Amino acid sequence: MSRERSAPATRRGFLKAGLAAGGAVATGGAARAAAGDPAITEIQPWMQELGPGVDEFPYGMPSPYESHVRRRNVEWLTADPVSSINFTPIHELDGIITPNGVCFERHHAGAAQVDPAKHRLMINGLVDKPLVFTMKDLMRFPRENHVYFCECAANSGMEWRGAQLNGAQFTHGMIHNVMYTGIPLRLLLEEAGVKTNGKWVMPEGADASGMTRSVPMEKAMDDCLVAFKMNGEALRVEQGYPLRLVVPGWEGNMWVKWLRRLEVGDEPWHHREETSKYTDLMADGKARRFTWEMDAKSVITNPSPQAPLTHGKGRTVLTGIAWSGRGTIPRVDVTIDGGKNWHEARMSGPSLSKSMHRFYFEFEWDGTPLLLQSRAHDSTGYVQPTKDELRKIRGENSIYHNNGIQTWYINEKGEAENVEIS
Amino acid sequence: MSRERSAPATRRGFLKAGLAAGGAVATGGAARAAAGDPAITEIQPWMQELGPGVDEFPYGMPSPYESHVRRRNVEWLTADPVSSINFTPIHELDGIITPNGVCFERHHAGAAQVDPAKHRLMINGLVDKPLVFTMKDLMRFPRENHVYFCECAANSGMEWRGAQLNGAQFTHGMIHNVMYTGIPLRLLLEEAGVKTNGKWVMPEGADASGMTRSVPMEKAMDDCLVAFKMNGEALRVEQGYPLRLVVPGWEGNMWVKWLRRLEVGDEPWHHREETSKYTDLMADGKARRFTWEMDAKSVITNPSPQAPLTHGKGRTVLTGIAWSGRGTIPRVDVTIDGGKNWHEARMSGPSLSKSMHRFYFEFEWDGTPLLLQSRAHDSTGYVQPTKDELRKIRGENSIYHNNGIQTWYINEKGEAENVEIS
Repeated sequence: MSRERSAPATRRGFLKAGLAAGGAVATGGAARAAAGDPAITEIQPWMQELGPGVDEFPYGMPSPYESHVRRRNVEWLTADPVSSINFTPIHELDGIITPNGVCFERHHAGAAQVDPAKHRLMINGLVDKPLVFTMKDLMRFPRENHVYFCECAANSGMEWRGAQLNGAQFTHGMIHNVMYTGIPLRLLLEEAGVKTNGKWVMPEGADASGMTRSVPMEKAMDDCLVAFKMNGEALRVEQGYPLRLVVPGWEGNMWVKWLRRLEVGDEPWHHREETSKYTDLMADGKARRFTWEMDAKSVITNPSPQAPLTHGKGRTVLTGIAWSGRGTIPRVDVTIDGGKNWHEARMSGPSLSKSMHRFYFEFEWDGTPLLLQSRAHDSTGYVQPTKDELRKIRGENSIYHNNGIQTWYINEKGEAENVEIS
Repeated sequence: MSRERSAPATRRGFLKAGLAAGGAVATGGAARAAAGDPAITEIQPWMQELGPGVDEFPYGMPSPYESHVRRRNVEWLTADPVSSINFTPIHELDGIITPNGVCFERHHAGAAQVDPAKHRLMINGLVDKPLVFTMKDLMRFPRENHVYFCECAANSGMEWRGAQLNGAQFTHGMIHNVMYTGIPLRLLLEEAGVKTNGKWVMPEGADASGMTRSVPMEKAMDDCLVAFKMNGEALRVEQGYPLRLVVPGWEGNMWVKWLRRLEVGDEPWHHREETSKYTDLMADGKARRFTWEMDAKSVITNPSPQAPLTHGKGRTVLTGIAWSGRGTIPRVDVTIDGGKNWHEARMSGPSLSKSMHRFYFEFEWDGTPLLLQSRAHDSTGYVQPTKDELRKIRGENSIYHNNGIQTWYINEKGEAENVEIS
């Protein structure tokens, strides 16, 4: 196994490699001479006309040329779009911040339209002093800021039985990564005073589904946040405006949106979302329960089926994302030949615990087919497994917690396809 | 000077203090009992109705209840909104990321509406090989991700002659802080091959103003980026879509938007934006030039004139932002009594070089008037000066580079006003 050292971006860092050993390596293609390009010789309209002034867009939107950068849902996945999923266009993004407008959505009764003036947060159950907070009350508690990924437990869930969905957005797009501002849940629980037999917390949503989960007190007192802002501004409606629970590193369904109540109890509630849903059916017919932590995972976002290589041979930038519910990602390995050779990817951007990381691998494509894979290592030493390694332990009946290595096949034309190799 | 140690958010961290020593200290107010609040006993409509499904908003927008969170311009500041400024609503934000929709705008000919397919970047002048890149060409170069603040040199410029504008948005809102993805400018210059006498780079914009500045080669080769993404998605139109120069820590007018050309020369060009504009007229009638770096600065965003205290006595959260063009902000001091006592603020969120930092100070308000100030220290040891200290050196004729300490006066009702004290 060969390995390239991670280093700052450098134009000398392009790996000359491809599937065919000794194949012709194209060197150019990344810059072209000025002569004859009408886009250079013609004066463009935007160089001659005044654009909109500073009073026209109090809240800005993306360029009309970017309308393809959008969330997408898959109609046949669910019976109704009000209890369904759409996907973050991860193949169109870069860096580690997901812009609020395209963070994936998962609702059980549609996106609740809450009036913050009429919203309340209650703490009850095994507490010394049951409390109800208005939004204004909550603004008087200390806040913290953290960048965390939020991943649906069902992300990549269709892939247990082989390559199903053709696009990184659909296989891995139930994730977003934003800076949350919120009140440590610990402070609110301390305010109410948790009784000594209070061992679990049940967050409840104010939407029509009344979403609930059981959160162990250790986690509640550790790093959970009652968040009210994402990427600087108020939570978006579809992300739980005005309040959502943030449960760092744990599956997204516990991050209860439109948060209206926190009940303290002495045992878990065994509600629907932790019994018939969000449990993992094993090969022997038994189900794993309370599989909260999201294991280390990565995916190559470019090239990928929705983002083929269109430039032909030569310099090629491969990029992707990696994350772990247990800490940081110090290293990602990449192969372009289906695992014959692995190379250490270059990481760029802040490395924050329980946050998305961005990796890159630059190489000279010789135009022969490629088999692309990435493999994340997290700060605990855990290494992302293959899908087959997962299936040996978990069988093929699962929906949730598929963090297996993803493979994209790139043909001679640069087109990409979701495949499996063993 | 008393000082509180910086520490994680804690409910015990509330400082019991106010202007009047020994004044009555209110303790409660941050939580209220359930009884009698109709918002608790009534079932709200969003708990009974299905919300919009996942197919309704391919690109999401903020809640209608957040329509007050918007950029604002000041009509009398400039002759025409196409060569003008609007301001980031910093008093409505938290954390350190500015959402793309409210990043302040500064145009010289309106926001150019560029078609990326017809956009080109040229490198010419003192180079071995003049080059022209399409957007697709550029996507084949290595990229990096960094969170940087971008501040207009004129931010707080109206305050040289005393308190003028009543709101943090207007006094300090010509700043944004986002994660940029871009190609190190160094790599593109190396691709063209800079001749030995190439000492300056002139970026030129593709808007109708043809914005230009002179950037010294040392900075160009250090940390400048040719950026194409902000907070994960494509640059917004008003931020230079599809390409902008990022000049970390330096004044915003050098961050040329709609970047179309980079000319390499042996001396600065002395164009309009570095002679009649963006120079600092001193008291003796001479002008400082090439004042690129943004000095360390901070401002309290809440409470502030647009965000008064409405909750009365008791627990109060004060928050603000700090930044430096020279590195990180290890410390911010806060006073609530006009400088009699200074307290070390609590920092929360990633501390990144040339990025915004977020600080908090929690105290119990006794209901008496307050004089709020913040004072940033940067990683070089530089301490933010008072406005009077600045005026002693710079006079009152300047427009740019006012990083003086800002004062807000809070009256008994909690209303805030822009004031100066000496």
